[in-house]
Amino acid sequence: MQTFESLAQQFAAHFNKDHFPKEPASLYEPNRYFLQLGGKRVRPVGVLMGNELFDEIVPDAWNVATAIELFHNFTLIHDDIMDAAPLRRGMATVHEKWGASTALLAGDVMLVAAYEYLNKVSGKYVFTLNSLFNRTAREVCEGQQLDMDFEKRSDVSQEEYLHMINLKTSVLLAASLKMGAILGGAGERNQNLLYEFGRKLGLAFQVQDDYLDAFGDPGKFGKQVGGDIKSNKKTFLLIHALETASAGQKQELEALLKADESDKVERVLSIFRATGVDAWALELKDRYLQEALAHLDDVAVLSKRKEPLRELALYLIHRDS
Amino acid sequence: MQTFESLAQQFAAHFNKDHFPKEPASLYEPNRYFLQLGGKRVRPVGVLMGNELFDEIVPDAWNVATAIELFHNFTLIHDDIMDAAPLRRGMATVHEKWGASTALLAGDVMLVAAYEYLNKVSGKYVFTLNSLFNRTAREVCEGQQLDMDFEKRSDVSQEEYLHMINLKTSVLLAASLKMGAILGGAGERNQNLLYEFGRKLGLAFQVQDDYLDAFGDPGKFGKQVGGDIKSNKKTFLLIHALETASAGQKQELEALLKADESDKVERVLSIFRATGVDAWALELKDRYLQEALAHLDDVAVLSKRKEPLRELALYLIHRDS
Repeated sequence: MQTFESLAQQFAAHFNKDHFPKEPASLYEPNRYFLQLGGKRVRPVGVLMGNELFDEIVPDAWNVATAIELFHNFTLIHDDIMDAAPLRRGMATVHEKWGASTALLAGDVMLVAAYEYLNKVSGKYVFTLNSLFNRTAREVCEGQQLDMDFEKRSDVSQEEYLHMINLKTSVLLAASLKMGAILGGAGERNQNLLYEFGRKLGLAFQVQDDYLDAFGDPGKFGKQVGGDIKSNKKTFLLIHALETASAGQKQELEALLKADESDKVERVLSIFRATGVDAWALELKDRYLQEALAHLDDVAVLSKRKEPLRELALYLIHRDS
Repeated sequence: MQTFESLAQQFAAHFNKDHFPKEPASLYEPNRYFLQLGGKRVRPVGVLMGNELFDEIVPDAWNVATAIELFHNFTLIHDDIMDAAPLRRGMATVHEKWGASTALLAGDVMLVAAYEYLNKVSGKYVFTLNSLFNRTAREVCEGQQLDMDFEKRSDVSQEEYLHMINLKTSVLLAASLKMGAILGGAGERNQNLLYEFGRKLGLAFQVQDDYLDAFGDPGKFGKQVGGDIKSNKKTFLLIHALETASAGQKQELEALLKADESDKVERVLSIFRATGVDAWALELKDRYLQEALAHLDDVAVLSKRKEPLRELALYLIHRDS
């Protein structure tokens, strides 16, 4: 059993090659640029770990892992267009450097490249793997659409937000682990337990992300603290605050969302604290983490095989930056 | 052997169902809207005809045909965003009705739906069909990028334009026919002859499209005559005119491209006529059509099996509207 760090290094060595033809450079240079911006590669390594939980890593796991990472990057390029985001990992986004049309096409061809790697897989799992990949791809698109829909609404419920986050971020991690499990020859029950482990881990991660955006240490958190508040983003925190605030607090919060005052972040944070949203979020995060770990516990393999996945979960969720 | 019309009717009956889930309606309603705008369905029927050239139509041919048509519609939705086109088949485009972000996602999920149909195919041709589909998808993206690149250049050669058109429009028709041939059990030589038939037919069709945009009968041509000239679009005609015009004609043509005078279309057309571009285009179109038909002639099956494809070629190319 290998650790996340060891597998991440091996995946990087495998992935850091040219996935695209030379010409037309106007199309593929943006793709190469975007991929070399890097990333934690949690999802592709999830494929490898899901596989190794049950058996030695099979050659096809590297193809599936590559497909997953290319798919993830396709979603990032297109999401950046939709969010009009100027930066990704501290560098200019594709549409910022080359325009929206090229970014759109670069994303399209990145998705096609993902399918090219998926088509390298042979053997009895081809149909199952493709089905799960396609369903997940569709769900991620649905999640992004819901996210955009929610931006225009002020009455998004906790349940709706959870549904959106589940589609937009959790299912891809869940599917990565499950695809690995399938390749490792896991039975359906174990496959699904690993899927649920990934799904709950994704939810815990999102709660944490929402929490850190508001209450994180500016020196450790990679992004600008308060960014979600400034842009009125619906988050676990804001939605819960709106649902549990007193009439007066709710009125103030809604006024703050409409205006754009210089002390907005400070004042929203003070309402968050007054309504106890900070403690509530930490509890929610921990609940999802415990649920994830319970699913992992249920997987019918020797406990010691599960150690790397358990460590990964704790590493991802207990981070304070 | 069935005619194009008969197969087109059968495909329409097959295709006119709901390919998408109900929710989120904000994502899938645009897809449903776009598909019901219709179209000639030449490419999916090409799959069926390619299959029937060699053997009875197999059930999987309907899945491949559906995948091809969904893929084609994905490219149209995204192209419309890039071209900022307000209309498609006389109706509002997706981005015009729902905004660019939803159009982007609707296109993405249309592409995923195409792959879902492709994944319904079983049996020994799965890898080959997916390979050809992926390569073609990649090439279509490359063609669209080159088309955009050329808009910014004034020195595009006939050879470069041909390469772009080949990728942007010809390879999809060619691949549709070849995928049908593969499903019909054709040998590699016959598969490739049919691919070349489709490729050349696509080129002939594009020359004709460029010609009709300039010299078509406004009453019969579906689009606005002179539209390419007004938008300074590189076409077979403009590129050839620039390459063969006298120094004086070239100067006038370049001046017309830069300005936006009310008699622009008229004056460009008169240069086109003076340089003989109209007759040249008709000859070029006929040359590509003859080359296409020669490839079809070479296919090693009984001549009478080829009749529907030959009729389709003549119908597509000899149209005057």
